[in-house]
Amino acid sequence: MTSFRLIKNCPQTKARVGELITPHATVPTPVFLPVGSQGVVKTLAPDEVKALGFSMVLANTYHLYLRPGIDVIEKLGGLHSFMGWEGAILTDSGGYQVFSLAPLRRVSDEGVTFRSHIDGSQHNFTPELAVRYQETLGADIIMALDECPAHDDSLEKVKKATERTHRWAERCLKAHKRPGQALYAIVQGGLFPDLRRQSAEYLTSLGFPGYAIGGLSIGEPKQLTMEMVEETAAFLPEGKPRYLMGVGSPEDIVEAVARGCDIFDSALPTRVARNGALFTWQGRVNITNAAYADMEQPVVEGCGCYSCRNFSAAYLHHLFNAGELLAYRLATIHNLSFLSELMSKIRGAIEDGTFAAFKKDFLAGYQPTDEPTRLAQKHKWREKRNFSQ
Amino acid sequence: MTSFRLIKNCPQTKARVGELITPHATVPTPVFLPVGSQGVVKTLAPDEVKALGFSMVLANTYHLYLRPGIDVIEKLGGLHSFMGWEGAILTDSGGYQVFSLAPLRRVSDEGVTFRSHIDGSQHNFTPELAVRYQETLGADIIMALDECPAHDDSLEKVKKATERTHRWAERCLKAHKRPGQALYAIVQGGLFPDLRRQSAEYLTSLGFPGYAIGGLSIGEPKQLTMEMVEETAAFLPEGKPRYLMGVGSPEDIVEAVARGCDIFDSALPTRVARNGALFTWQGRVNITNAAYADMEQPVVEGCGCYSCRNFSAAYLHHLFNAGELLAYRLATIHNLSFLSELMSKIRGAIEDGTFAAFKKDFLAGYQPTDEPTRLAQKHKWREKRNFSQ
Repeated sequence: MTSFRLIKNCPQTKARVGELITPHATVPTPVFLPVGSQGVVKTLAPDEVKALGFSMVLANTYHLYLRPGIDVIEKLGGLHSFMGWEGAILTDSGGYQVFSLAPLRRVSDEGVTFRSHIDGSQHNFTPELAVRYQETLGADIIMALDECPAHDDSLEKVKKATERTHRWAERCLKAHKRPGQALYAIVQGGLFPDLRRQSAEYLTSLGFPGYAIGGLSIGEPKQLTMEMVEETAAFLPEGKPRYLMGVGSPEDIVEAVARGCDIFDSALPTRVARNGALFTWQGRVNITNAAYADMEQPVVEGCGCYSCRNFSAAYLHHLFNAGELLAYRLATIHNLSFLSELMSKIRGAIEDGTFAAFKKDFLAGYQPTDEPTRLAQKHKWREKRNFSQ
Repeated sequence: MTSFRLIKNCPQTKARVGELITPHATVPTPVFLPVGSQGVVKTLAPDEVKALGFSMVLANTYHLYLRPGIDVIEKLGGLHSFMGWEGAILTDSGGYQVFSLAPLRRVSDEGVTFRSHIDGSQHNFTPELAVRYQETLGADIIMALDECPAHDDSLEKVKKATERTHRWAERCLKAHKRPGQALYAIVQGGLFPDLRRQSAEYLTSLGFPGYAIGGLSIGEPKQLTMEMVEETAAFLPEGKPRYLMGVGSPEDIVEAVARGCDIFDSALPTRVARNGALFTWQGRVNITNAAYADMEQPVVEGCGCYSCRNFSAAYLHHLFNAGELLAYRLATIHNLSFLSELMSKIRGAIEDGTFAAFKKDFLAGYQPTDEPTRLAQKHKWREKRNFSQ
């Protein structure tokens, strides 16, 4: 069975430590899930992901449904066996990807019809099918199908999407049978506090074993993201895990943990790694900058990750400069190692009762990417429809 | 010091086992060197190359001179330190790359002026500079600068290039000072048996510690390649290692070992891996073929490589299909593991006195890529000037 155990609350903030007990791993929370949309954490083999300290990853129903196909993974013994990952897996239902990636989609109460972003072929997802596909994939935690409105949609539009998300959540709950697997609901409500509260309350009344906060970090200013997290978490049950979808920058994770979130996933750490942006405790640096061309030290002095222990900044700079594929792996390892260490520090601080001080110190030292640059990057990334992870 | 010790000759063929003693490793021969032109065996970290059983790799002076620059590698403590490789290294002089890659080259007796294929900047290599750069890189074995004519050049043109290669070899020998490092000469002579013999004899008279057979496997039919190998090896000293440059297909290695060659390098096994072509004992198969889409077994049943031990053919097929970078690494590991095992079997058979039978069995079972396809692929690859490795 998959369950959640709350272990300790932070006295000054809403942060808490706990553990997710799943058939494949007991996962300490707050936890960050590396993203493996297509059944692989980009550039890494499963043993490398494990060695980085992760015991749970995310995969995506939309991507796996289109390629290689649910039937192929079923034949290969399910997703764990297919991707060679022995730890826990959470699969997203594909709702977000249908609404962000697939062209020509038509939504009705029944479900959503869309075209594949790969070959244009037409497909249909319903709440029941989303559950069935995820039962077949066999993840430890699966997600209800939701309708994710755009961050600048009108109140009316967001209200409709939120209500449909509720009806779909009920249908998912009814359809879900696979024992040992937990089905989480997704709270919507856009940037409207009332809708957020209504969504959290309604879904809570249905009694899911976990709740995701969806529809955030999709282009809105960060301040609003955190306000909505606060508005939503306040109305979710204390004893159930809260999963903030699509948030993975170090400063956002720290802020959201302080607002009571337990689970995070985002392709950001691995995506920016492949662009040469590496996390340090002072913020992101870009290894392709000329300053690293002949630096004998690793990118982060004293960093314990495989990449920093074995290679100079100059070598990593060279690999990026020369377009060598090893570059992307070494950078991915560094960023995921940073996230793994950050989550471990966060949990330790909450356990020690020092999280408020940790948060203050971390945010004082960490220079986030400035807001205009961040939004421009996000916009550019969305424009390119580079959602594949 | 770097030296060569001949251990045993095959009674039926010209094959022999020996060992290259270098400052960084004692390397059993016949040996295949994975190619790491830019200071990295594409997709792999040094510990992975070592785990595959390789104790020596090839790097390229032309590529490293242009990027990151000889001075950067010098500052980082030399090439071994820069790329984190503790085994032996052989650097090619860059002669072949200048003649195959760089545009607008002008050759004179003094040396060769060329433009970088990266940014068009102008550069100049002389025999003395090629030696100095390689002394600075610090490889265990370095190569003399040569002039490599095209496979269809006229007798007169090839004769001129061969004679210039001889003069350059003498100047390299005179310029070379670094102790412990061995400088090998490169035999040219195109597809003209007389020129091959003259080149082998002349360079042998200069007393190098090793000899490469250059100017082959650059577009000529395979049969001619092997004829020229035979013509050349016959006039090289028995006690010195013979390095057949740019040959790396399994069947060619077996044939060339039988003709007395000891060292091989080629980007072919790693390059075709990235196109999904995997070595089996029956020939190359392409993992992107639909037949592999749902195959639970590994690509090569019973293969001991990391990729085949851990992943199904279906998963590897999916990774290629989805453009996942892990695909290229897993395929590279498989092909290099195959080469490593092949070389080990070759050495074992020569030691046991059964190499002639091994060769017969291997060639009977191994279906090489047919000649028109092979030449078309090679042509396409050369057209794309995809010589970076």
